[in-house]
Amino acid sequence: MAVVHIVLALALLEFFYFCLAVAGARATYKVPPPATSGHEVFERYFRVQMNTLEQLVIFVPSILLFGWYVSPWLAALLGLGFVIGRALYFRGYVRAAGDRHFGFMVSVVPNVALLVGGLLGALWELVRPALH
Amino acid sequence: MAVVHIVLALALLEFFYFCLAVAGARATYKVPPPATSGHEVFERYFRVQMNTLEQLVIFVPSILLFGWYVSPWLAALLGLGFVIGRALYFRGYVRAAGDRHFGFMVSVVPNVALLVGGLLGALWELVRPALH
Amino acid sequence: MAVVHIVLALALLEFFYFCLAVAGARATYKVPPPATSGHEVFERYFRVQMNTLEQLVIFVPSILLFGWYVSPWLAALLGLGFVIGRALYFRGYVRAAGDRHFGFMVSVVPNVALLVGGLLGALWELVRPALH
Repeated sequence: MAVVHIVLALALLEFFYFCLAVAGARATYKVPPPATSGHEVFERYFRVQMNTLEQLVIFVPSILLFGWYVSPWLAALLGLGFVIGRALYFRGYVRAAGDRHFGFMVSVVPNVALLVGGLLGALWELVRPALH
Repeated sequence: MAVVHIVLALALLEFFYFCLAVAGARATYKVPPPATSGHEVFERYFRVQMNTLEQLVIFVPSILLFGWYVSPWLAALLGLGFVIGRALYFRGYVRAAGDRHFGFMVSVVPNVALLVGGLLGALWELVRPALH
Repeated sequence: MAVVHIVLALALLEFFYFCLAVAGARATYKVPPPATSGHEVFERYFRVQMNTLEQLVIFVPSILLFGWYVSPWLAALLGLGFVIGRALYFRGYVRAAGDRHFGFMVSVVPNVALLVGGLLGALWELVRPALH
Protein backbone atom coordinates (compact mmCIF):
# COMPACT_ATOMS: atom_id res chain seq x y z
CA MET A 1 0.00 0.00 0.00
CA ALA A 2 3.04 2.34 0.14
CA VAL A 3 2.42 3.47 -3.45
CA VAL A 4 -1.17 4.40 -2.54
CA HIS A 5 0.04 6.34 0.50
CA ILE A 6 2.55 8.26 -1.64
CA VAL A 7 -0.11 9.41 -4.13
CA LEU A 8 -2.42 10.26 -1.22
CA ALA A 9 0.29 12.42 0.37
CA LEU A 10 0.98 14.10 -3.00
CA ALA A 11 -2.70 15.06 -3.26
CA LEU A 12 -2.51 16.58 0.24
CA LEU A 13 0.67 18.50 -0.65
CA GLU A 14 -1.09 19.84 -3.74
CA PHE A 15 -4.00 20.95 -1.54
CA PHE A 16 -1.58 22.63 0.86
CA TYR A 17 -0.18 24.53 -2.14
CA PHE A 18 -3.75 25.64 -3.02
CA CYS A 19 -4.14 26.91 0.58
CA LEU A 20 -0.95 28.97 0.20
CA ALA A 21 -2.21 30.29 -3.16
CA VAL A 22 -5.44 31.48 -1.50
CA ALA A 23 -3.42 33.25 1.21
CA GLY A 24 -1.36 34.90 -1.55
CA ALA A 25 -4.51 35.91 -3.46
CA ARG A 26 -5.89 37.47 -0.25
CA ALA A 27 -2.90 39.81 -0.17
CA THR A 28 -2.78 40.49 -3.94
CA TYR A 29 -6.49 41.25 -4.33
CA LYS A 30 -6.87 42.92 -0.93
CA VAL A 31 -9.52 40.66 0.65
CA PRO A 32 -8.70 40.92 4.37
CA PRO A 33 -9.87 38.04 6.62
CA PRO A 34 -12.43 36.99 7.71
CA ALA A 35 -14.03 37.99 4.37
CA THR A 36 -14.10 35.36 1.60
CA SER A 37 -15.54 37.59 -1.09
CA GLY A 38 -14.94 41.09 -2.45
CA HIS A 39 -12.75 40.43 -5.50
CA GLU A 40 -13.75 38.02 -8.24
CA VAL A 41 -10.23 36.67 -8.88
CA PHE A 42 -9.73 35.94 -5.17
CA GLU A 43 -13.09 34.17 -5.14
CA ARG A 44 -11.92 31.87 -7.93
CA TYR A 45 -8.76 30.92 -5.99
CA PHE A 46 -10.98 30.33 -2.96
CA ARG A 47 -13.42 28.15 -4.91
CA VAL A 48 -10.53 26.01 -6.21
CA GLN A 49 -9.53 25.40 -2.60
CA MET A 50 -13.07 24.69 -1.38
CA ASN A 51 -13.97 22.42 -4.29
CA THR A 52 -10.71 20.49 -3.82
CA LEU A 53 -11.54 20.15 -0.11
CA GLU A 54 -14.91 18.63 -1.05
CA GLN A 55 -13.28 16.24 -3.51
CA LEU A 56 -10.51 15.25 -1.05
CA VAL A 57 -13.05 14.15 1.55
CA ILE A 58 -14.18 11.59 -1.05
CA PHE A 59 -10.71 10.91 -2.46
CA VAL A 60 -8.77 10.03 0.70
CA PRO A 61 -10.97 7.14 1.93
CA SER A 62 -11.75 6.01 -1.64
CA ILE A 63 -8.15 5.56 -2.78
CA LEU A 64 -7.47 3.56 0.41
CA LEU A 65 -10.50 1.29 -0.10
CA PHE A 66 -9.74 0.81 -3.80
CA GLY A 67 -6.08 0.10 -3.01
CA TRP A 68 -7.06 -2.40 -0.32
CA TYR A 69 -9.87 -4.29 -2.10
CA VAL A 70 -9.05 -3.89 -5.80
CA SER A 71 -5.43 -3.03 -6.64
CA PRO A 72 -2.87 -0.68 -5.05
CA TRP A 73 -1.15 0.10 -8.36
CA LEU A 74 -4.40 0.85 -10.19
CA ALA A 75 -5.48 2.97 -7.19
CA ALA A 76 -2.20 4.91 -7.43
CA LEU A 77 -2.67 5.41 -11.17
CA LEU A 78 -6.24 6.74 -10.78
CA GLY A 79 -5.03 8.86 -7.85
CA LEU A 80 -2.33 10.37 -10.03
CA GLY A 81 -5.05 11.23 -12.56
CA PHE A 82 -6.91 13.02 -9.76
CA VAL A 83 -3.79 15.01 -8.76
CA ILE A 84 -3.09 16.03 -12.37
CA GLY A 85 -6.78 16.90 -12.93
CA ARG A 86 -6.77 19.13 -9.85
CA ALA A 87 -3.69 20.98 -11.16
CA LEU A 88 -5.49 21.59 -14.48
CA TYR A 89 -8.62 22.66 -12.58
CA PHE A 90 -6.57 25.16 -10.55
CA ARG A 91 -4.89 26.60 -13.67
CA GLY A 92 -8.16 26.78 -15.61
CA TYR A 93 -10.41 28.19 -12.88
CA VAL A 94 -7.91 30.89 -11.86
CA ARG A 95 -7.74 32.00 -15.51
CA ALA A 96 -11.54 32.16 -15.95
CA ALA A 97 -14.57 30.54 -14.29
CA GLY A 98 -15.54 29.07 -17.67
CA ASP A 99 -12.17 27.27 -17.96
CA ARG A 100 -12.72 25.10 -14.89
CA HIS A 101 -14.65 22.26 -16.58
CA PHE A 102 -11.85 20.27 -18.22
CA GLY A 103 -9.71 19.93 -15.09
CA PHE A 104 -12.83 19.26 -13.05
CA MET A 105 -13.76 16.26 -15.22
CA VAL A 106 -10.17 14.95 -15.33
CA SER A 107 -10.15 14.86 -11.52
CA VAL A 108 -13.74 13.81 -10.81
CA VAL A 109 -13.85 10.80 -13.13
CA PRO A 110 -10.95 8.94 -11.41
CA ASN A 111 -12.35 10.03 -8.02
CA VAL A 112 -15.75 8.44 -8.73
CA ALA A 113 -14.00 5.35 -10.16
CA LEU A 114 -12.03 5.01 -6.90
CA LEU A 115 -15.19 5.41 -4.81
CA VAL A 116 -17.38 3.01 -6.80
CA GLY A 117 -14.53 0.49 -7.20
CA GLY A 118 -13.77 0.60 -3.47
CA LEU A 119 -17.45 0.14 -2.60
CA LEU A 120 -17.83 -2.83 -4.98
CA GLY A 121 -14.62 -4.34 -3.60
CA ALA A 122 -15.90 -4.10 -0.02
CA LEU A 123 -19.31 -5.51 -1.03
CA TRP A 124 -17.60 -8.44 -2.76
CA GLU A 125 -15.49 -9.08 0.37
CA LEU A 126 -18.69 -9.21 2.45
CA VAL A 127 -20.76 -11.50 0.22
CA ARG A 128 -17.96 -13.79 -1.05
CA PRO A 129 -17.90 -16.09 2.01
CA ALA A 130 -21.66 -16.62 1.64
CA LEU A 131 -21.23 -17.83 -1.95
CA HIS A 132 -18.97 -20.76 -1.04
CA MET B 1 -14.30 -4.33 8.56
CA ALA B 2 -15.88 -4.70 5.08
CA VAL B 3 -19.31 -3.74 6.44
CA VAL B 4 -17.84 -0.53 7.92
CA HIS B 5 -16.17 0.28 4.61
CA ILE B 6 -19.46 -0.22 2.75
CA VAL B 7 -21.35 2.23 4.99
CA LEU B 8 -18.42 4.67 4.75
CA ALA B 9 -18.55 4.50 0.94
CA LEU B 10 -22.35 4.98 0.99
CA ALA B 11 -21.88 8.18 3.04
CA LEU B 12 -19.37 9.42 0.43
CA LEU B 13 -21.75 8.57 -2.44
CA GLU B 14 -24.49 10.51 -0.66
CA PHE B 15 -22.13 13.47 -0.32
CA PHE B 16 -21.28 13.22 -4.02
CA TYR B 17 -25.02 13.42 -4.73
CA PHE B 18 -25.22 16.58 -2.58
CA CYS B 19 -22.36 18.06 -4.67
CA LEU B 20 -24.32 17.34 -7.87
CA ALA B 21 -27.44 18.89 -6.28
CA VAL B 22 -25.49 22.09 -5.55
CA ALA B 23 -24.28 22.21 -9.16
CA GLY B 24 -27.90 21.78 -10.26
CA ALA B 25 -29.10 24.51 -7.88
CA ARG B 26 -26.42 26.84 -9.31
CA ALA B 27 -28.03 26.49 -12.73
CA THR B 28 -31.65 26.60 -11.53
CA TYR B 29 -31.26 29.66 -9.30
CA LYS B 30 -28.71 31.40 -11.54
CA VAL B 31 -25.76 31.72 -9.14
CA PRO B 32 -22.76 31.65 -11.51
CA PRO B 33 -19.41 30.50 -10.03
CA PRO B 34 -17.33 31.60 -8.17
CA ALA B 35 -20.23 33.15 -6.19
CA THR B 36 -21.74 31.07 -3.36
CA SER B 37 -24.54 33.46 -2.50
CA GLY B 38 -27.18 35.48 -4.35
CA HIS B 39 -30.26 33.25 -4.08
CA GLU B 40 -31.55 31.96 -0.76
CA VAL B 41 -32.60 28.54 -2.05
CA PHE B 42 -29.17 27.96 -3.62
CA GLU B 43 -27.58 28.98 -0.33
CA ARG B 44 -29.57 26.28 1.47
CA TYR B 45 -28.37 23.60 -0.97
CA PHE B 46 -24.85 24.93 -0.49
CA ARG B 47 -25.11 24.86 3.32
CA VAL B 48 -26.31 21.22 3.21
CA GLN B 49 -23.16 20.39 1.27
CA MET B 50 -20.83 22.40 3.53
CA ASN B 51 -22.35 21.12 6.77
CA THR B 52 -22.13 17.54 5.49
CA LEU B 53 -18.48 18.16 4.58
CA GLU B 54 -17.83 19.28 8.18
CA GLN B 55 -19.61 16.24 9.59
CA LEU B 56 -17.84 13.83 7.20
CA VAL B 57 -14.42 14.97 8.40
CA ILE B 58 -15.50 13.68 11.83
CA PHE B 59 -17.48 10.70 10.51
CA VAL B 60 -14.88 8.99 8.30
CA PRO B 61 -12.14 8.49 10.93
CA SER B 62 -14.69 7.93 13.72
CA ILE B 63 -16.54 5.04 12.07
CA LEU B 64 -13.17 3.39 11.35
CA LEU B 65 -11.96 3.78 14.96
CA PHE B 66 -15.29 2.59 16.37
CA GLY B 67 -15.35 -0.36 13.96
CA TRP B 68 -11.78 -1.28 14.89
CA TYR B 69 -11.90 -0.88 18.70
CA VAL B 70 -15.56 -1.45 19.56
CA SER B 71 -17.63 -3.35 16.98
CA PRO B 72 -17.77 -3.28 13.16
CA TRP B 73 -21.48 -4.14 13.04
CA LEU B 74 -22.47 -1.52 15.61
CA ALA B 75 -20.27 0.99 13.75
CA ALA B 76 -22.08 0.14 10.51
CA LEU B 77 -25.47 0.52 12.21
CA LEU B 78 -24.60 3.94 13.67
CA GLY B 79 -23.10 4.90 10.30
CA LEU B 80 -26.34 3.97 8.57
CA GLY B 81 -28.14 6.25 11.03
CA PHE B 82 -25.78 9.04 9.98
CA VAL B 83 -26.47 8.43 6.26
CA ILE B 84 -30.25 8.42 6.80
CA GLY B 85 -30.03 11.52 9.04
CA ARG B 86 -28.12 13.37 6.34
CA ALA B 87 -30.79 12.50 3.75
CA LEU B 88 -33.47 13.91 6.10
CA TYR B 89 -31.28 16.97 6.74
CA PHE B 90 -30.96 17.54 2.97
CA ARG B 91 -34.71 17.19 2.39
CA GLY B 92 -35.61 19.40 5.36
CA TYR B 93 -33.06 22.19 4.83
CA VAL B 94 -33.82 22.52 1.10
CA ARG B 95 -37.52 22.91 1.98
CA ALA B 96 -36.92 25.58 4.63
CA ALA B 97 -34.03 26.62 6.88
CA GLY B 98 -36.22 25.94 9.93
CA ASP B 99 -36.78 22.32 8.82
CA ARG B 100 -33.11 21.36 9.10
CA HIS B 101 -33.05 20.51 12.82
CA PHE B 102 -34.57 17.01 12.83
CA GLY B 103 -32.25 15.54 10.19
CA PHE B 104 -29.32 17.35 11.79
CA MET B 105 -29.91 15.65 15.14
CA VAL B 106 -30.55 12.23 13.54
CA SER B 107 -27.12 12.45 11.87
CA VAL B 108 -25.11 14.21 14.59
CA VAL B 109 -26.06 11.91 17.48
CA PRO B 110 -24.66 8.73 15.83
CA ASN B 111 -21.65 10.73 14.63
CA VAL B 112 -20.78 11.86 18.17
CA ALA B 113 -21.42 8.30 19.44
CA LEU B 114 -18.93 6.97 16.84
CA LEU B 115 -16.34 9.59 17.81
CA VAL B 116 -16.64 9.19 21.59
CA GLY B 117 -16.87 5.38 21.33
CA GLY B 118 -13.81 5.24 19.07
CA LEU B 119 -11.84 7.51 21.43
CA LEU B 120 -12.78 5.41 24.50
CA GLY B 121 -11.90 2.22 22.60
CA ALA B 122 -8.45 3.57 21.71
CA LEU B 123 -7.89 4.79 25.30
CA TRP B 124 -8.85 1.36 26.64
CA GLU B 125 -6.42 -0.29 24.19
CA LEU B 126 -3.62 1.96 25.47
CA VAL B 127 -4.21 1.53 29.22
CA ARG B 128 -5.32 -2.14 29.25
CA PRO B 129 -1.77 -3.61 29.20
CA ALA B 130 -0.87 -1.45 32.21
CA LEU B 131 -3.79 -2.89 34.21
CA HIS B 132 -2.54 -6.49 34.03
CA MET C 1 -1.14 3.01 16.93
CA ALA C 2 -3.68 3.52 19.78
CA VAL C 3 -1.86 6.67 20.92
CA VAL C 4 -2.11 8.11 17.39
CA HIS C 5 -5.82 7.30 17.26
CA ILE C 6 -6.39 9.05 20.62
CA VAL C 7 -4.75 12.29 19.45
CA LEU C 8 -6.65 12.03 16.16
CA ALA C 9 -9.96 11.69 18.04
CA LEU C 10 -9.03 14.64 20.30
CA ALA C 11 -8.49 16.82 17.20
CA LEU C 12 -11.94 15.79 15.94
CA LEU C 13 -13.54 16.56 19.33
CA GLU C 14 -11.89 19.98 19.24
CA PHE C 15 -13.32 20.54 15.75
CA PHE C 16 -16.75 19.49 16.97
CA TYR C 17 -16.43 22.12 19.71
CA PHE C 18 -15.60 24.73 17.02
CA CYS C 19 -18.78 23.67 15.16
CA LEU C 20 -20.83 24.24 18.34
CA ALA C 21 -19.11 27.62 18.83
CA VAL C 22 -20.15 28.67 15.31
CA ALA C 23 -23.74 27.64 16.04
CA GLY C 24 -23.57 29.71 19.24
CA ALA C 25 -22.11 32.70 17.37
CA ARG C 26 -24.97 32.44 14.83
CA ALA C 27 -27.43 33.01 17.66
CA THR C 28 -25.40 35.67 19.51
CA TYR C 29 -24.64 37.80 16.44
CA LYS C 30 -27.96 37.15 14.71
CA VAL C 31 -26.75 35.54 11.47
CA PRO C 32 -29.67 33.24 10.54
CA PRO C 33 -28.88 30.26 8.27
CA PRO C 34 -28.18 29.78 5.40
CA ALA C 35 -26.18 33.07 5.55
CA THR C 36 -22.49 32.81 6.52
CA SER C 37 -21.80 36.52 6.62
CA GLY C 38 -23.45 39.62 8.07
CA HIS C 39 -21.56 40.16 11.33
CA GLU C 40 -17.78 40.37 11.46
CA VAL C 41 -17.39 38.50 14.77
CA PHE C 42 -19.54 35.62 13.49
CA GLU C 43 -17.42 35.52 10.35
CA ARG C 44 -14.30 35.08 12.46
CA TYR C 45 -15.83 32.10 14.31
CA PHE C 46 -16.85 30.70 10.94
CA ARG C 47 -13.37 31.14 9.46
CA VAL C 48 -11.82 29.31 12.44
CA GLN C 49 -14.12 26.39 11.67
CA MET C 50 -13.49 26.43 7.91
CA ASN C 51 -9.71 26.81 8.23
CA THR C 52 -9.62 23.97 10.76
CA LEU C 53 -11.66 21.86 8.34
CA GLU C 54 -9.04 22.52 5.64
CA GLN C 55 -6.21 21.63 8.00
CA LEU C 56 -7.95 18.47 9.28
CA VAL C 57 -8.24 17.07 5.76
CA ILE C 58 -4.43 17.15 5.71
CA PHE C 59 -3.98 16.23 9.39
CA VAL C 60 -6.05 13.02 9.63
CA PRO C 61 -4.29 11.01 6.90
CA SER C 62 -0.88 12.57 7.70
CA ILE C 63 -0.80 11.60 11.38
CA LEU C 64 -1.78 8.04 10.40
CA LEU C 65 0.95 7.79 7.74
CA PHE C 66 3.57 9.32 10.04
CA GLY C 67 2.51 7.03 12.90
CA TRP C 68 2.68 4.00 10.62
CA TYR C 69 5.94 4.66 8.75
CA VAL C 70 7.94 6.84 11.17
CA SER C 71 6.90 6.66 14.83
CA PRO C 72 3.53 6.51 16.60
CA TRP C 73 4.75 8.41 19.66
CA LEU C 74 6.39 11.19 17.64
CA ALA C 75 3.20 11.36 15.53
CA ALA C 76 1.13 11.72 18.71
CA LEU C 77 3.44 14.45 20.01
CA LEU C 78 3.26 16.46 16.76
CA GLY C 79 -0.50 15.86 16.69
CA LEU C 80 -0.81 17.25 20.20
CA GLY C 81 1.06 20.34 18.97
CA PHE C 82 -1.54 20.66 16.20
CA VAL C 83 -4.44 20.40 18.69
CA ILE C 84 -2.90 23.02 21.01
CA GLY C 85 -2.08 25.30 18.06
CA ARG C 86 -5.70 25.11 16.87
CA ALA C 87 -6.95 26.10 20.35
CA LEU C 88 -4.62 29.14 20.27
CA TYR C 89 -5.77 29.92 16.72
CA PHE C 90 -9.41 29.82 17.84
CA ARG C 91 -8.78 32.09 20.85
CA GLY C 92 -6.67 34.55 18.83
CA TYR C 93 -8.85 34.78 15.70
CA VAL C 94 -12.08 35.23 17.68
CA ARG C 95 -10.42 38.11 19.58
CA ALA C 96 -9.19 39.85 16.40
CA ALA C 97 -8.36 38.80 12.84
CA GLY C 98 -4.79 40.07 13.35
CA ASP C 99 -4.31 37.73 16.36
CA ARG C 100 -4.73 34.55 14.32
CA HIS C 101 -1.12 34.19 13.13
CA PHE C 102 0.56 32.68 16.21
CA GLY C 103 -1.91 29.82 16.68
CA PHE C 104 -1.95 29.26 12.92
CA MET C 105 1.81 28.70 12.83
CA VAL C 106 1.79 26.52 15.97
CA SER C 107 -0.73 24.21 14.27
CA VAL C 108 0.51 24.33 10.66
CA VAL C 109 4.18 23.54 11.36
CA PRO C 110 3.46 20.14 13.02
CA ASN C 111 0.84 19.44 10.35
CA VAL C 112 3.35 19.94 7.52
CA ALA C 113 5.93 17.90 9.47
CA LEU C 114 3.43 15.03 9.73
CA LEU C 115 2.62 15.23 6.01
CA VAL C 116 6.22 15.44 4.76
CA GLY C 117 7.42 12.82 7.27
CA GLY C 118 4.60 10.45 6.28
CA LEU C 119 5.35 10.94 2.57
CA LEU C 120 9.10 10.30 3.07
CA GLY C 121 8.31 7.24 5.19
CA ALA C 122 6.07 5.78 2.46
CA LEU C 123 8.68 6.58 -0.23
CA TRP C 124 11.37 4.85 1.83
CA GLU C 125 9.11 1.78 2.25
CA LEU C 126 8.66 1.63 -1.54
CA VAL C 127 12.31 2.01 -2.57
CA ARG C 128 13.97 0.08 0.32
CA PRO C 129 13.46 -3.40 -1.20
CA ALA C 130 15.12 -2.21 -4.42
CA LEU C 131 18.23 -1.13 -2.50
CA HIS C 132 18.98 -4.62 -1.14
